[in-house]
Amino acid sequence: MTAPGLPMAVPARGLPPRVRIHEVGARDGLQNEKATVPTEVKAEFVHRLAAAGLTTVEATSFVHPKWVPQLADAERLFPLLGDIEGVHLPVLVPNDRGLDRALALGARRVAVFASATESFAQANLNRTVDEALAMFEPVVARAKAAEAAHERVHVRGYLSMCFGDPWEGPVPIPQVVRVCKALLDMGCDELSLGDTIGVATPGHVLALLAALDEQGVPTDRIGVHFHDTYGQALANTLAALQHGVTTVDASAGGLGGCPYAKSATGNLATEDLVWMLHGLGIETGVDLGRLTDTSVWMATQLGRPSPSRTVRALSHKES
Amino acid sequence: MTAPGLPMAVPARGLPPRVRIHEVGARDGLQNEKATVPTEVKAEFVHRLAAAGLTTVEATSFVHPKWVPQLADAERLFPLLGDIEGVHLPVLVPNDRGLDRALALGARRVAVFASATESFAQANLNRTVDEALAMFEPVVARAKAAEAAHERVHVRGYLSMCFGDPWEGPVPIPQVVRVCKALLDMGCDELSLGDTIGVATPGHVLALLAALDEQGVPTDRIGVHFHDTYGQALANTLAALQHGVTTVDASAGGLGGCPYAKSATGNLATEDLVWMLHGLGIETGVDLGRLTDTSVWMATQLGRPSPSRTVRALSHKES
Repeated sequence: MTAPGLPMAVPARGLPPRVRIHEVGARDGLQNEKATVPTEVKAEFVHRLAAAGLTTVEATSFVHPKWVPQLADAERLFPLLGDIEGVHLPVLVPNDRGLDRALALGARRVAVFASATESFAQANLNRTVDEALAMFEPVVARAKAAEAAHERVHVRGYLSMCFGDPWEGPVPIPQVVRVCKALLDMGCDELSLGDTIGVATPGHVLALLAALDEQGVPTDRIGVHFHDTYGQALANTLAALQHGVTTVDASAGGLGGCPYAKSATGNLATEDLVWMLHGLGIETGVDLGRLTDTSVWMATQLGRPSPSRTVRALSHKES
Repeated sequence: MTAPGLPMAVPARGLPPRVRIHEVGARDGLQNEKATVPTEVKAEFVHRLAAAGLTTVEATSFVHPKWVPQLADAERLFPLLGDIEGVHLPVLVPNDRGLDRALALGARRVAVFASATESFAQANLNRTVDEALAMFEPVVARAKAAEAAHERVHVRGYLSMCFGDPWEGPVPIPQVVRVCKALLDMGCDELSLGDTIGVATPGHVLALLAALDEQGVPTDRIGVHFHDTYGQALANTLAALQHGVTTVDASAGGLGGCPYAKSATGNLATEDLVWMLHGLGIETGVDLGRLTDTSVWMATQLGRPSPSRTVRALSHKES
C-alpha cells in the first residue's frame, strides 16, 4: 500500500454522498477471454468481489454458448454462487430462452442489451435497432411479471454505442435518447449508458444526461458505463457524478480484454474508480485493499497483469 | 485513426475556450531514461513536438550532469533547437551555475523546482524546504533581471508533492500554499502544482486552488502537473479547468518512466489530454495525429510502447 491516509478524502461540492458500483468484471470482463476460466475460479472471483464490499456483482450471461463460449457454464456457475446477503447478482439475458434459464435458477436481476446505432445492432444482434427492441420487449415484460424470492425481478437495460460508433462516428444525442426511452417504456428499471469504444468526453456525457433530463428520465434510473480506451473514463465519470448520477459500472482490475484491440474494450477499472470516489469522500462500501488483492489474484489466474493503474501502483508497493 | 469526427466536440459550461499545454516530455519525460538517448534524437523530438502544434516545449535541464546523466548534453542540445517561431523552449535551472549556462545559450524561459514537503526537499535537494527556497531566491532574482532577445526572462516555479508525499502521506493545504506564495513573492511568473506521486483526486485539487484564490494568487499564474499513477490525472485536470486553470503540463506519449516504479512517475500523456480538450471543444493548437505519430516514433527510439491509452488506441487502428 501507499503512504497511510491516501487518498486523502476531500469532498467537492455538488457530488452525491454515496455511489453504487455495478461490478461487471465477472461477466463483461471475462466474456472475451479466449482461454476458458474454470467455473470454480469464476465463483471464487464473484465471492471475493462481494467480500470486498461490492453490492452488485454481475455474475454471468445466459447468451447462447455459441456466441460467448467463455460464459457457457452459466447454468453451473450460478447455483455455485448461492445467496450472498446484501449482494445483487444480475445476469445477462438476450432472449426468452435465456430468461427462462436464468429464472429457473432463481436469478432476481436480469439485463438486456440494446444498441444506439444501427451498425452495432447489426454487428452484435444481427437486427436493426428497432428489431432488437422488439425482441427485448416481451423478455422485459415477462421478467417484470415474474417473481423471485417474493420480489419482482429487476431489469437493467444496457445501451451500447451511446457516444461514438466505430463505423458511424459520433452518435447523435436524440438517437440515443429515443432508444433510452424505448427501454424504459418497455419496463426496464434502470439503464446503463455505454461508451463502448471509449471515445466520449465530459461535455458529451453532460449533454446526453441533460437531454435525458429534458425527456423526464429520472437520473436515479441511469447508470454510466465508460471505457478507458482513450483514458477518458474517470473524467467522464466525474462529469456524470456532477450531474447527479449515482450508479457507475466498472470492472475489477480493468478486466475486459485488451484495450488496444479493435473490439475496443478496456473497461474502467473498479480500483481506479474507487480511488477517485474515496478521494472525493464518496462512500462505496468497498475495501480497496481487498479489491486490489482480488484483481491481483485474478490477474494471476489469467496469466497477465491488470491494466488498472491503481492495481499496479498498489500491488507494486506491496511487493 | 478512429472513425472520422471523433472525439465529437461538445463544450461544457464554465470551461476555458483555450488551454496552453506545457509539454514536458523532452525533459521530465526523458530524464529518468537509463539508456542514453542521442542528442540528435532529442532535438528531433523537440522539433516534432513543436511541429505538432505544441507552443511550450520544455527542452532540457541544466542540472549538474551527475544528478541527471540523461540530460548531460543540455549544452550541446539547446543550440541545436534553434529559434522556433511561436514556441517557447523553457529549461530547468537548479542554481546559479545552471542559470549561467542557460542564459549563456540564450534561454528565454527557465524553471526552478521546489518541494512542498520536507521529506522530498531532503530527498531531491538535500535541503529543508526553506533552505531550497533560499537557494532559488537569488537564481530567480538574477533570471528576472536578465534579458534575452530584448525580453525579460520568464521564470516558472515547479512545486513537487502538492497533494501527497510517499513518506508523509497527505500534504496539508496551508503548507503548499505557503511555498506557492514564497515562489511567487521571489518573482516566479508562474507555478506548476505537481502531484508527483499521482494520488490527488478532484476535490483535493479544487480545495488547493480555492485556498490559493483566497490568498490572492491569480489563477492565470497557476499550471497543474498531474501524474497518472492511479489513473486520476484527467479527472483532476477536468476539475482544474472547471476552476479556471488554463495551463496544463503533460508529457507526449506519457513519457516519464515506468508508472509502477517506486519513483512514482507516470506523467499525464499529452495525447490523452488533447483527446479530452478537443472533445470539450477547447482549443490547443495541437494536431493529435502528428503528436501521436511523434510519440510512436519516440517509443520506437526507446524500445518500448507508449503508456498513453490514446496513443495505443490510435496507433493500433492505424496499423
